[in-house]
Amino acid sequence: MERNVEIICIGNELLIGKVLNTNAHWLAKRTTSLGMIVKRMTVAGDDISEIVSVVREALQRKPQFIITTGGLGPTFDDKTLKGIAKALGREWEIDEKALEMVRQKYETFAKEGRIEKVELTPPRLKMAKLPKGAKPLPNPVGTAPAMIASIKETVLIALPGVPSEMEAIFKGSIAQLFRKVAGKTMFYETSIYADGIMESRIAPLIDQVMHDNPHVYIKSHPHREERKPHLELHFSTTAEAAKIGRSCISKATSQLEELIRKNDGKVKAVRKEK
Amino acid sequence: MERNVEIICIGNELLIGKVLNTNAHWLAKRTTSLGMIVKRMTVAGDDISEIVSVVREALQRKPQFIITTGGLGPTFDDKTLKGIAKALGREWEIDEKALEMVRQKYETFAKEGRIEKVELTPPRLKMAKLPKGAKPLPNPVGTAPAMIASIKETVLIALPGVPSEMEAIFKGSIAQLFRKVAGKTMFYETSIYADGIMESRIAPLIDQVMHDNPHVYIKSHPHREERKPHLELHFSTTAEAAKIGRSCISKATSQLEELIRKNDGKVKAVRKEK
Repeated sequence: MERNVEIICIGNELLIGKVLNTNAHWLAKRTTSLGMIVKRMTVAGDDISEIVSVVREALQRKPQFIITTGGLGPTFDDKTLKGIAKALGREWEIDEKALEMVRQKYETFAKEGRIEKVELTPPRLKMAKLPKGAKPLPNPVGTAPAMIASIKETVLIALPGVPSEMEAIFKGSIAQLFRKVAGKTMFYETSIYADGIMESRIAPLIDQVMHDNPHVYIKSHPHREERKPHLELHFSTTAEAAKIGRSCISKATSQLEELIRKNDGKVKAVRKEK
Repeated sequence: MERNVEIICIGNELLIGKVLNTNAHWLAKRTTSLGMIVKRMTVAGDDISEIVSVVREALQRKPQFIITTGGLGPTFDDKTLKGIAKALGREWEIDEKALEMVRQKYETFAKEGRIEKVELTPPRLKMAKLPKGAKPLPNPVGTAPAMIASIKETVLIALPGVPSEMEAIFKGSIAQLFRKVAGKTMFYETSIYADGIMESRIAPLIDQVMHDNPHVYIKSHPHREERKPHLELHFSTTAEAAKIGRSCISKATSQLEELIRKNDGKVKAVRKEK
């Protein structure tokens, strides 16, 4: 079964460089470690036509999952669900379950004395509006519910942009879904560090090791190519059994370590294995 | 004149969540502050067909500039220029100027005693291969030259993924280009902080201020909607004169501060103005 995931982050604050996109990073790391494959990440602005475009373009690539972040709140610039509804050609309307979730939040606020009475003003009602046919996902940390919808072969999930809310909903509602789809497939990785050998010299050695270990992907990360070359070599694979995953990685790592030493490079033995 | 920019970051390390995409953030911040508009940011893997897709899709949206990062180095997984050549239907071939840049780097390494002799091995020659018709840009920090090419209305720029190299080439070769296109247009922004007022209550106040100040964009960033609400309110605009930009922002900020106080919220007077 395919395990492709696309991540779409909505927010002008990302496009103007005000906010570093830690949400995409967190989601990519979690998604990968659960055995899924992140194929693409996109950032678009708080603009209906932009949201319609990114969602339609992602759907055309037919990933198993699309996760969006941001744009679920009460202000005018929270446009994600309206945009998704338009992209799908569906109505954007009050969902009874979502409304109940929002009402309960404000009832709690009233009990706590933080608001005088429960008033479902238009900005608050807006958080209960979903594309027709979508389902709300509970938000244990914030007020706005998240959303999940099926569109042909793709499951589309909209999460909030506030990191603590996004992470709580992912852990509570999405992780188990990904685990089920990935089955036993897991991601394995390790890094070694090479000193005193240039990236251009190590390139053919990596080619050789990848040729001999077709299931292992090796990527070099030069921290300085000039002055003192210091290279991180990252090994990764996916496998259905931990034993196989780890032994694949271990075999490739040992071979490259030996080749580097033969070429007068130094290898730091410290490995971070996951 | 249009000032749209798209940023495309190439690298599996971004998709697996190994590396946080600080390059996109740095470029977005710089590009915006120079008066240009970042319309979209995309991350794709080290895969020719993925690179071809993202580049073609971006070109179809006809931005004035596309900047790619990553994939210019000597290893097998550095595929950006080959992918761009394929996306453009052009040959991917040795460029004499790029070759001269690469050769000079290795001559310097040889003089410094870091390599025995200047050998232009296939991985090193690869860094001198550009799509036909493109021009190399000097890399003052690393070995691989960057690239610039014109494709109809779009200027396509490929920068390395190593942050120090990417930043040096941007400052040396791209910033002046953006400044010229943006002309006198500059980006102005400031933030104020509101406490004790919920985002859902502030939403209609923002609507009112944006209605009265059509050139100012206001975005609320809730740091906590539950417990003690703490909101950052970010004001931004672009203008051709600093005086106009700052007074637009100042007028909107004052009006929203007053409305928040009338609604029992507290406003922190500290402003970070840029």
